[in-house]
Amino acid sequence: MDNTRPRMRWWGWGEDGNDGPVKPGAKVILSKHCGWPAGVDRPHVELEDVALPESTLTDQVRTRLGEIVSEEFVRDDRATRISHAAGRSLPDLIRLRAGQLTSAPDAVVYPASTAEVDALLAVCAEQSVAVVPFGGGTSVVGGVDAVRGEFSAVVSISLTRLDQVVDIDEESLTATVQAGVFGPDLEETLQARGFTLAHYPQSFEFSTVGGWVATRSAGQQSTGYGRIDENVHGLRVATPAGPVELRTTPATAAGPNPRQLFVGSEGTLGIITEATLRIRRVPSSVQADSWFFPDFASGTAALREMEQSGLHLDIARLSDVNETAFGLAQLGSELQRKGVLAYLRARGITTPCLLVVRYDGAQSDVRARRSQGRAIVRRRGGVNLGSVPETSWEKHRFSTPYLRDQLLREGMIVETMETSAPWSKVEELHDSISAAIQAEMAERGTPAFVLCHVSHLYASGCSLYYTVFAKQQVGAEIAQWKALKSAASDAIVAGGGTITHHHAVGTDHAPWLPAETGQMWLRMLRAAKAEVDPTGIMNPGKLMNGPDQL
Amino acid sequence: MDNTRPRMRWWGWGEDGNDGPVKPGAKVILSKHCGWPAGVDRPHVELEDVALPESTLTDQVRTRLGEIVSEEFVRDDRATRISHAAGRSLPDLIRLRAGQLTSAPDAVVYPASTAEVDALLAVCAEQSVAVVPFGGGTSVVGGVDAVRGEFSAVVSISLTRLDQVVDIDEESLTATVQAGVFGPDLEETLQARGFTLAHYPQSFEFSTVGGWVATRSAGQQSTGYGRIDENVHGLRVATPAGPVELRTTPATAAGPNPRQLFVGSEGTLGIITEATLRIRRVPSSVQADSWFFPDFASGTAALREMEQSGLHLDIARLSDVNETAFGLAQLGSELQRKGVLAYLRARGITTPCLLVVRYDGAQSDVRARRSQGRAIVRRRGGVNLGSVPETSWEKHRFSTPYLRDQLLREGMIVETMETSAPWSKVEELHDSISAAIQAEMAERGTPAFVLCHVSHLYASGCSLYYTVFAKQQVGAEIAQWKALKSAASDAIVAGGGTITHHHAVGTDHAPWLPAETGQMWLRMLRAAKAEVDPTGIMNPGKLMNGPDQL
Repeated sequence: MDNTRPRMRWWGWGEDGNDGPVKPGAKVILSKHCGWPAGVDRPHVELEDVALPESTLTDQVRTRLGEIVSEEFVRDDRATRISHAAGRSLPDLIRLRAGQLTSAPDAVVYPASTAEVDALLAVCAEQSVAVVPFGGGTSVVGGVDAVRGEFSAVVSISLTRLDQVVDIDEESLTATVQAGVFGPDLEETLQARGFTLAHYPQSFEFSTVGGWVATRSAGQQSTGYGRIDENVHGLRVATPAGPVELRTTPATAAGPNPRQLFVGSEGTLGIITEATLRIRRVPSSVQADSWFFPDFASGTAALREMEQSGLHLDIARLSDVNETAFGLAQLGSELQRKGVLAYLRARGITTPCLLVVRYDGAQSDVRARRSQGRAIVRRRGGVNLGSVPETSWEKHRFSTPYLRDQLLREGMIVETMETSAPWSKVEELHDSISAAIQAEMAERGTPAFVLCHVSHLYASGCSLYYTVFAKQQVGAEIAQWKALKSAASDAIVAGGGTITHHHAVGTDHAPWLPAETGQMWLRMLRAAKAEVDPTGIMNPGKLMNGPDQL
Repeated sequence: MDNTRPRMRWWGWGEDGNDGPVKPGAKVILSKHCGWPAGVDRPHVELEDVALPESTLTDQVRTRLGEIVSEEFVRDDRATRISHAAGRSLPDLIRLRAGQLTSAPDAVVYPASTAEVDALLAVCAEQSVAVVPFGGGTSVVGGVDAVRGEFSAVVSISLTRLDQVVDIDEESLTATVQAGVFGPDLEETLQARGFTLAHYPQSFEFSTVGGWVATRSAGQQSTGYGRIDENVHGLRVATPAGPVELRTTPATAAGPNPRQLFVGSEGTLGIITEATLRIRRVPSSVQADSWFFPDFASGTAALREMEQSGLHLDIARLSDVNETAFGLAQLGSELQRKGVLAYLRARGITTPCLLVVRYDGAQSDVRARRSQGRAIVRRRGGVNLGSVPETSWEKHRFSTPYLRDQLLREGMIVETMETSAPWSKVEELHDSISAAIQAEMAERGTPAFVLCHVSHLYASGCSLYYTVFAKQQVGAEIAQWKALKSAASDAIVAGGGTITHHHAVGTDHAPWLPAETGQMWLRMLRAAKAEVDPTGIMNPGKLMNGPDQL
């Protein structure tokens, strides 16, 4: 396997061959709400037309880096630099498609061992070269932007050659995994031995273990299997001041938890080279259910009751009225859609909200939980649809980013954002975020269609995940995005939510971080960073050193 | 209620009226293993005979503090100072009983609000007065020692007047609680509304919410209800640089987790004044089971299987051969004990290990889990004893510290220590720690009797909790304790355990912290501390600033 090959096409999501046309039903609904710009075709520029700044890496530094990883693994060709210049946020895609890169790494370096990472960081610190750790490059918050800061050059360190599952402790149910292992490779290795991490962010196919840990990631099954921060039991981090190794313990009272300072540190403290993760046995039984609720509030009430009663859902995903309507609009045929709506109307449901759930475990246990779940949902007014909508969602669960590429080509923008909040604030927050987005976008003359779903449950609250569609404001797409992002983020913070439930901070959420954690915490974080990264080379401009304004 | 009254007697554990004689069976077993020093009676000195250094608090500082809390709540009388001079570790008790205090706070201050705590810290920072946060004073690791450091004076700030349950969010299942609320008061308030935190450290009756959070505490039901670090969802901390408020979120990806830096910070960063905690509904059903295993290994194997299969035990406590023998020795009568042993021998069990478990929840769920648990235990060779041993253990679960007071009087020492480790290391670690303690104590001429139990289960490992008995080395008790502590701690670190699973670091575990977390982490922690406590007044000499040697 060539682990230096970029896995994603340089201008968009994933790999070729997965794109399809926007479905007619979706066009109808987007036309109605946003004014679909018919006939637009805005393809991305060609690779050779991308404006790419000259590499500023000196020969001397290049030689020093090459001495560590061998010359072949210090790359500064056009394709490599461009494919490591940005993540996959909406503004990233707007800039990439237009060929307007404002920054790019001067080189990409591919170490093959933790010792090589240690050595690279020592040289970069000595030579004042900024470092951007790079896993799969799927960040949607500017986390892998090649920010040079005050330094003479910036290199991306790709972890993709650190691709080994080092150890599986079958007795303790932990796996020690190198940072550059991609989702599918990890699951293949684990499942061959009967285990699973079951960490499935939407980026699963193109993101790495190191990226998950660095961004405090949550996956589509994290309600059942836990967020990555809950599943990290040991860590090895390379820092400019030397390696940090945190031993694997199930639990400890030995002071503040060091792991929880490195998990979510987004490459600003160092490079996570290895993580010891909690794994589980592959469940012997998996059962799904799908429901329509008469409204969003009864759906969230059911989810809250299920979660708080210890029912342990492994997947739970409740779409609000708009998201459900958008899903129904894309059903096989208009006839089919009308049939579903008539069926629901006959049962008093005129603003349906779809819930899909899944229970994993031993057969008898799964059966008991499912039956308990059904009782709760029915009491809350849910109408059962069997397992098909859930399995259908699962089948397509990694494909929606391709739709974004297609919509961008056809003159639309698509943005996503997420938060979490205590149950007592969810209803109000759901409405206030939607309203803020709609007001802002209407004012700009590009009315938005806003979808939302709940995808992660906790005893004390849940996540809210938004998808926003609008017509592109041609020539002012970045300003349009900033306005949208600011309106949503202001509403999140004002409503008591967190600025990000699983996308991380990067550059894009940094302006709202002080409101959430306070300036004191950021000062503490910067002081801790100064110990391991005294010259500040690690991922400049992100997280606690991110911009004050978008 | 007078919240400035010390809850514990000044020279020992808890309150008068709970002491009893050491049971004859215990004496027999301790005589056999340790050489019981018959006829010894070493009562504690009288309060007036305790050597207490003069208070060095200046009138000026005293006046400033009094302006904040009123004069009445700045106390420097003998009884108040002595009762805040130490925690309840073995060396604390040795020193207190002998009246040989090496340090004591110059005054104890009792703020009644978070604003008063903020103001007190500002004055102490300005006046260079060291601060020891004081909850219930039950630390067994030197966490509340009045270490003056380089400062002119040291005050203990007692949180006992911050005694309010501020808010219960019944929808989100969280309770916001002031730091000085004691365990029984919290549970009374919560249970009156149908909720529980179910956090029951052995110190439950005499310890506070703030103390639990500051020491990263675990309780006897934490296997089911979670450690305190898992249950803190929001925090308010007063620091010399000003208050830090961490908003309540169920989960977030907004960078490293700030809560997890303050949880377990042991008063070195500031004073936790308020915590928002996850609570649960009081379970409708509670069922217990007790078993004898043929050996410790089959017992841990059963626990591992139960935990890893998602059975969700709420209490699990497996005693090793020595602890089981010690428990049996204290049974009602010799006849009864012999009866039990004969019953077990007939079933092939000659070295019995007692396991008690409890399942909490809805009735049908509890029944299902219990039946599943029974199947696992039987397969591993467990012999069922019904629920009585568990309920009996529960009845007495807060009383063993009183036995320690009695044994100290009768010429014995009793020490406890705890760790956790991955399942794959537990068996070896269990043996190596016992062996290290026994070797060290035998060499000193005071052979030890070492008991151990598992009390906290995690998917990836479990805790080990040791109790050590030996004859006092009269006149060299502190040296004897240091030797014992060092031998055990060296073995813990060497065997891959954590230096403390729930007792915290304080002064006593500080020498082993670098081996566990590395020096880099401690430097990061000190740098973060310098931001909130620039002059270093907060709880000097503990945790990251604790001694390098015992």
